[in-house]
Amino acid sequence: MGEFELIRHYFAAAPCAQGGEAVALGIGDDCALLAVPPGEQLAVSTDTLVAGVHFPDPCDPFLLGQRSLAVAVSDLAAMGANPLAFTLALTLPTVAADWLQAYARGLSQMAQACGVALVGGDTTRGPLSLTLTVFGRVPSGQALTRNGAQPGDLLCVGGELGNAAGALPLVLGERSAEPDVAEPLLAHYWSPRPQIDLGLALRGKASAAMDISDGLLADCGHISLASGVALTVERDRLPLSMPLVTLLGQSGAEHAALSGGDDYVLLFTLPPVRLSRLLVEGWPIHVVGSVTAGQGVTLVDSLGRDITPQIRGYQHFRETP
Amino acid sequence: MGEFELIRHYFAAAPCAQGGEAVALGIGDDCALLAVPPGEQLAVSTDTLVAGVHFPDPCDPFLLGQRSLAVAVSDLAAMGANPLAFTLALTLPTVAADWLQAYARGLSQMAQACGVALVGGDTTRGPLSLTLTVFGRVPSGQALTRNGAQPGDLLCVGGELGNAAGALPLVLGERSAEPDVAEPLLAHYWSPRPQIDLGLALRGKASAAMDISDGLLADCGHISLASGVALTVERDRLPLSMPLVTLLGQSGAEHAALSGGDDYVLLFTLPPVRLSRLLVEGWPIHVVGSVTAGQGVTLVDSLGRDITPQIRGYQHFRETP
Repeated sequence: MGEFELIRHYFAAAPCAQGGEAVALGIGDDCALLAVPPGEQLAVSTDTLVAGVHFPDPCDPFLLGQRSLAVAVSDLAAMGANPLAFTLALTLPTVAADWLQAYARGLSQMAQACGVALVGGDTTRGPLSLTLTVFGRVPSGQALTRNGAQPGDLLCVGGELGNAAGALPLVLGERSAEPDVAEPLLAHYWSPRPQIDLGLALRGKASAAMDISDGLLADCGHISLASGVALTVERDRLPLSMPLVTLLGQSGAEHAALSGGDDYVLLFTLPPVRLSRLLVEGWPIHVVGSVTAGQGVTLVDSLGRDITPQIRGYQHFRETP
Repeated sequence: MGEFELIRHYFAAAPCAQGGEAVALGIGDDCALLAVPPGEQLAVSTDTLVAGVHFPDPCDPFLLGQRSLAVAVSDLAAMGANPLAFTLALTLPTVAADWLQAYARGLSQMAQACGVALVGGDTTRGPLSLTLTVFGRVPSGQALTRNGAQPGDLLCVGGELGNAAGALPLVLGERSAEPDVAEPLLAHYWSPRPQIDLGLALRGKASAAMDISDGLLADCGHISLASGVALTVERDRLPLSMPLVTLLGQSGAEHAALSGGDDYVLLFTLPPVRLSRLLVEGWPIHVVGSVTAGQGVTLVDSLGRDITPQIRGYQHFRETP
């Protein structure tokens, strides 16, 4: 089987979502064709995962299939976009049917959960890496961006923090834990659930939004910079899971929640008057701080004292001096 | 400088095309936002280039910048789409300012020539590879696909064939040649010009189209299969350049034209009545064969004798038996 049949064989047959009328032409030609209804815009995001950098190598290809798509779709959720489709650029050292089948199954399962259709891609030989480009639809002018936070807004997150960072030593085999601790943390790492519905609910309500991929404090830094405001995070408001606290202790769990990456829950700001409605509707929203005039990100303890650590999210490159 | 500033610093400031109103939101948020006017569709294509597989490593980063974008935009030309924007996922082993600056310059120059704006991307650490996803606009229902070739159509190409394949031994330093031979061939390899205008001119005229990336015969196979027709290629009609024939001889040049990859000229079929108009308009179209009922691809000599070689385009993977 040649390169040309690879994607078709393992992926096109996989039961991804079909995309409906919005996918005018799928896999198999020089381009896919997407139809965007009048009054809507297309949201686009690209993410690369490299073996040994973004995931352990070797790892379970089924889980990698889930994770690689979830991470990408999370950016659509962060914009308040309706997921529509994606392309997959897959670079593999060798063709291994077992690996491809398992990867395609994991990818496919997440694609169905997120409602995205695979519309194209490329397969190449080389060190294992995956680049996914995801597409979503959003009514013109209603996308959630990072630059609208206002003094007086509340700072909120869409779920527990730090679980994926807590899972990392388990993923890497550096630690072990009882199943009731390990399993929920590992599930969060390998198959994060992009908060698509929450993103949709926040349209017209949140003043700024993004997904947490680099850690709460680092990502707060992005909103602070883009919006030109100061953000205060209250340590005692961090939503921590029981498994995380059991594994790392209170202090370790707080550290994971503040600086660990890979959470893929939404981080957003909104006026207090809009919060109650969302809470009544049952959204899993946690207020973790507030927005004020100024700049930068401050972490405070229960007495309001500044306990800001040196903020450092996960970055793949650091410039040498 | 962190990962987050990398793309912004080297690429966002580079004078790529700006995208105009169609790019509602560019680099810097979770997603870019593209506006597609009513009555148009968005054409999408993804291409990955891996060091040592798709280009020599090391190589001139300026030339790589040109080539990596041109190869991707060629897929838009093949659909008859108007190039609009692209994302870049760049995986690098280390951050080298010189390399990034030169790469960005080459990319930027090709982006201006093709009229595409950089709207997003990702930078990661790992073995050097590049994944570009390109976006174009096409009136709904007018995209050029591979599946409409009809018996009676002519089989045409948009320019000389084999030049990039001829350049490969020069690129790899396996051969040398006089400047008047080497330079045009190397230019074709490193900065192919996507036939955007020809693709637009073929809308409503060509019955099938694609760009030649795997070699003429292999790519004819794709049209044959998608359209359910037989294609005949006449060896003596192959458009060969003087530098190519000088370097490889007549027979070697024909082989490069038939089986070499990386041409990135358009391959298309159209009814004879539509050809004359295009030729009068001055398009560089060469008739290389014809479409008949049946299936498969046949190569014939000047006497019409079947001289079909085993067709084998460049494929990155071959399945082990």
